[in-house]
Amino acid sequence: MLRITNAHKLSIARSIDRGTTEQQCVVREILAAVKESGDKAVRAFTQKYDEVTIEKIRVTEEEFLAAKAHVPIEVRSALQEAADNIRAYHQHQARTSWFMTRESGTMLGQMIRPLQSVGLYVPGGSASYPSSVLMNAIPAQVAGVEKIVMVTPPDREGRIAPAVIVAAEIAGVTEIYKVGGAQAIGALTYGTQTIPAVDKIVGPGNIYVALAKREVFGIVSIDMIAGPSEIVVLADETASPSYIAADLLSQAEHDPLASAILLTTSQKVAEEVAFELERQIMNLPRKKIAEASLRSHGAICVVANLEEGFAVVNRLAPEHLELLVEDAHSHLGKIKNAGAVFLGPYSSEPVGDYFAGPNHVLPTNGTARFSSPLSVDDFIKKMSVISYSKADLVEHGEKIMRLAETEGLTAHAKAIQVRLASVSDKS
Amino acid sequence: MLRITNAHKLSIARSIDRGTTEQQCVVREILAAVKESGDKAVRAFTQKYDEVTIEKIRVTEEEFLAAKAHVPIEVRSALQEAADNIRAYHQHQARTSWFMTRESGTMLGQMIRPLQSVGLYVPGGSASYPSSVLMNAIPAQVAGVEKIVMVTPPDREGRIAPAVIVAAEIAGVTEIYKVGGAQAIGALTYGTQTIPAVDKIVGPGNIYVALAKREVFGIVSIDMIAGPSEIVVLADETASPSYIAADLLSQAEHDPLASAILLTTSQKVAEEVAFELERQIMNLPRKKIAEASLRSHGAICVVANLEEGFAVVNRLAPEHLELLVEDAHSHLGKIKNAGAVFLGPYSSEPVGDYFAGPNHVLPTNGTARFSSPLSVDDFIKKMSVISYSKADLVEHGEKIMRLAETEGLTAHAKAIQVRLASVSDKS
Repeated sequence: MLRITNAHKLSIARSIDRGTTEQQCVVREILAAVKESGDKAVRAFTQKYDEVTIEKIRVTEEEFLAAKAHVPIEVRSALQEAADNIRAYHQHQARTSWFMTRESGTMLGQMIRPLQSVGLYVPGGSASYPSSVLMNAIPAQVAGVEKIVMVTPPDREGRIAPAVIVAAEIAGVTEIYKVGGAQAIGALTYGTQTIPAVDKIVGPGNIYVALAKREVFGIVSIDMIAGPSEIVVLADETASPSYIAADLLSQAEHDPLASAILLTTSQKVAEEVAFELERQIMNLPRKKIAEASLRSHGAICVVANLEEGFAVVNRLAPEHLELLVEDAHSHLGKIKNAGAVFLGPYSSEPVGDYFAGPNHVLPTNGTARFSSPLSVDDFIKKMSVISYSKADLVEHGEKIMRLAETEGLTAHAKAIQVRLASVSDKS
Repeated sequence: MLRITNAHKLSIARSIDRGTTEQQCVVREILAAVKESGDKAVRAFTQKYDEVTIEKIRVTEEEFLAAKAHVPIEVRSALQEAADNIRAYHQHQARTSWFMTRESGTMLGQMIRPLQSVGLYVPGGSASYPSSVLMNAIPAQVAGVEKIVMVTPPDREGRIAPAVIVAAEIAGVTEIYKVGGAQAIGALTYGTQTIPAVDKIVGPGNIYVALAKREVFGIVSIDMIAGPSEIVVLADETASPSYIAADLLSQAEHDPLASAILLTTSQKVAEEVAFELERQIMNLPRKKIAEASLRSHGAICVVANLEEGFAVVNRLAPEHLELLVEDAHSHLGKIKNAGAVFLGPYSSEPVGDYFAGPNHVLPTNGTARFSSPLSVDDFIKKMSVISYSKADLVEHGEKIMRLAETEGLTAHAKAIQVRLASVSDKS
């Protein structure tokens, strides 16, 4: 299924789907209609696209209770424990306001504040992803965001997946609205009679959701627009071929566009992983997806040594990187571009997807060159604070005026001059 | 010139210029041509739009030296001192990698790395803004970015403003290229024979530059797209009307679309500021711009008390906020949304624009609700690190499998199972 290739010109599928012109037009019309007509438009589009008539857009207390009753206790407690781990990790990311002082009396600083409100988009459809609810909502909660609102499309019976509702409650989401697609993004941007406007919208969605987020960017803040998922495993001769194959498959089962790539210094490992892939894929329910992914975007590459391996890793900037090599920690300093790094044989990627604590919302499409995992930083803002002393203004005022005049901004210079004049008047 | 109004329905002009369809098409064509033909396209567009034939796209060592000779020593030393202040402030923003451990052997962490390369766009035209070079480049340098590249359009003689070159050198920019407009953004995104591709593009520009940045967003990272500048002054009866008027004018002289707003608890201050504005505007070289700005987007509002004032401030989320009130520090906790806060009579906004140290690249258009001043954070990325222990996998593996199965991702569960099976085989 996977040929063993060499690392030259290896690449991860880079796809930023910008939609067709028609899709862009549809999205603009939906956003304009929601801005104009609020709930009325939301209901109409839900009728049209989700094929269901929604009476109450907001999920009721009864629905919260029913969801809880519907989800097995073992799943609920696993979600709760995962949430505790995610919270503990993200609490390390919390920032503090700081200031610096000068003897002259000047104080400069940076003030940290949470965003006031955040909207979380959760996709509907056949599969439901409660883990994604935890990963998106908990960093916002740790940041101190007061209002965390969730939107998700209802099924044709007007219901939302119970596990998603349960995860929302665990993660501190209090308001859930039954609306999906571009209309949900419009509602969170402009607000409707029922759904509040928010400061930032996060969470994955289909092409209409992605286009709508791109469209409202600037009016509200948005998170990155995620592409297909990727993993690169870098392995030496000590690595277990069955572990590697299982991890590659767990990536490949996501999406036919997902990329699963093995780089290894060992020809033997390469051959055994190829064999293990054939064996393990047999009984997978999502076999077809995994096969399509491996065939189009999978690769096994033998590299000359780990140095070559890290060079390829840094060029690919993968979303997930597993280091299945001896003394994996000692290689951390070589990694320049990756979303999340998994060290050693027991750090299988699903451990991070669900449970360990770090975020599973990671930069895809090579954007790990410049982007970071979703974090508490995404839900705070900073403000500069400048308290300049009279003594400093007297000492430095003329230099400031000179710089303003160099730029031709005379009124800027005069704002300093008026103060220098009045200070010297008094003295 | 400025009527005294009340604070009801007061708003800052919110304009996100998305360009015309024609402008968007022009930008897309330019980007495609630069991607396809590199330097050749860059030269052709420079010929077309800047009306000059550029032989050497990269600024030479001789041009660096000539620029230095051209800029007066007092201006150079003021720029150097400003740069030192900016560096000192931004060094407080530097982040460190961190990790947390569990007794079970698990280690989780977050690794900080600088971006590898950054491109800085500097507008050309009649005025040159060396301060903007410092404010954009120094945070990148403090972050540890190795390659900081600058692009700026040449004038019709093929030259770049000497003060901009001098500022670039002070700020640690080593490569400057004579190219502006959408073609510059294309070059920094895709790379040409001469100009390197970068990970992130920052800096303000005209509508073509803004549209091009919006277009390449995702292939590279971009900073926020800046709107017209804004100031809100909140003053009580202790404030100096002449200081306030001078500060409002320093904002208004930027742009006819700039907003300068006074909120005051004192009718007397309101009236005196109105008078002072008339007086001070008389001799400003940029009088026409300031007048147009004040007439369309300026306001003086008397508020009932400071509480009402802060409510208006938080609704407007201004780029700059001056607090000219008694005991200004004690009110910091009331500010939820602002880009930069200036406390007390000597913290005139130009002090922050040029010299104090905090960044002057600030969120406009009300985006201070969710955006922050440009900072070292904008030039680093984070990577999650997960080193999960065998003991933790044995203890928690089944829960992870349960969560994966809840989401229908069987291969994820199997990646855990294969490990649990082999661990128990061995034991």
